[in-house]
Amino acid sequence: MQFFQKQTSLRARSRGFHLVTDEIQQAIPEIKNIKNGMLQVFIQHTSASLTINENADPTVRLDFETWMNKAVPEGDPDYEHDYEGDDDMPAHIKSSLMGASVLIPITNGRLNLGTWQGIYLCEHRNRGGSRKVVISAWGS
Amino acid sequence: MQFFQKQTSLRARSRGFHLVTDEIQQAIPEIKNIKNGMLQVFIQHTSASLTINENADPTVRLDFETWMNKAVPEGDPDYEHDYEGDDDMPAHIKSSLMGASVLIPITNGRLNLGTWQGIYLCEHRNRGGSRKVVISAWGS
Amino acid sequence: MQFFQKQTSLRARSRGFHLVTDEIQQAIPEIKNIKNGMLQVFIQHTSASLTINENADPTVRLDFETWMNKAVPEGDPDYEHDYEGDDDMPAHIKSSLMGASVLIPITNGRLNLGTWQGIYLCEHRNRGGSRKVVISAWGS
Repeated sequence: MQFFQKQTSLRARSRGFHLVTDEIQQAIPEIKNIKNGMLQVFIQHTSASLTINENADPTVRLDFETWMNKAVPEGDPDYEHDYEGDDDMPAHIKSSLMGASVLIPITNGRLNLGTWQGIYLCEHRNRGGSRKVVISAWGS
Repeated sequence: MQFFQKQTSLRARSRGFHLVTDEIQQAIPEIKNIKNGMLQVFIQHTSASLTINENADPTVRLDFETWMNKAVPEGDPDYEHDYEGDDDMPAHIKSSLMGASVLIPITNGRLNLGTWQGIYLCEHRNRGGSRKVVISAWGS
Repeated sequence: MQFFQKQTSLRARSRGFHLVTDEIQQAIPEIKNIKNGMLQVFIQHTSASLTINENADPTVRLDFETWMNKAVPEGDPDYEHDYEGDDDMPAHIKSSLMGASVLIPITNGRLNLGTWQGIYLCEHRNRGGSRKVVISAWGS
């Protein structure tokens, strides 16, 4: 069993959902040394998140943002935590709905994603900046 | 430390939430060789998902489908991604809400689930067909 | 590679969202022996859950409860599973939205959380009682 771990930052993106599969893979080339194992990507923030979804049609990522903004509306007068702006508390809620990490099997030195799967960075703030991630990979 | 990995398919189910704990366990009998470890089940699709929930009363699974269809409605004119039908974009959103994988501790050769916990396959498409999963187990 | 596993209970909390990072860390001091690894906390219940979110301002936890109760309302006459009370079926749905586990990298013997991240116990029942968790840690 081997264990690799890297800390890096994903470059700043606009609010919305973004494919980062390639950026992640380039950050941890050691996965090619793992025959059977796991990759975890963990985001060290509470107003951005990670999920796995459709990697082809950009309208899927647009529709994610559309749905999410309806499901977790801004400006609800019932929110008490709002001193960083209207996108503050909704960003926290959205980040827990999507999750702070993804965990993907590695097979024969490659991420064993389905044909249509990619890793999304979900940027829930209007100006989130670059986002720190810890990438861990282990296996035999 | 040992690492086991299998690729298999879960048989096609109707749209809704289905218990697949037994089907998963039968696919990876090697977990009995692990005293302390982890099992991950990863679904290689973006319109079906996995979660852990109540394993006894089938009305829980029905109510999941009822709630989910209200929370992520079909036919929203704001969706841009709809060329595979009204269940297409909602299925993508639902899959990220539930998640593409479950990760469960193994203790003394068995899944260490709570008494009332089971693994759900969440089928979000009207006709999803069989679903490919990668099952990984590791530990000492 | 080492593997540690503990079973413990988190003390009973009121309905809502609660920081349990310290309680988790104290339950598994062995993480200090891991240079690069992972910690998983798994809750053995289907009406309480775990997530990672903001560790500083308690109004964030209050607003989570507020939003969640709107998103998953009690007393929906469409629920069929209601014999344990109005908080029963919503608790199941909420638990899958947040998830049954968190998975956090360990670096140099410590949880490698972001500055503002903590582990939340999400108690979705009015009287949930103490909650059993399985804590697993592995790495090199």
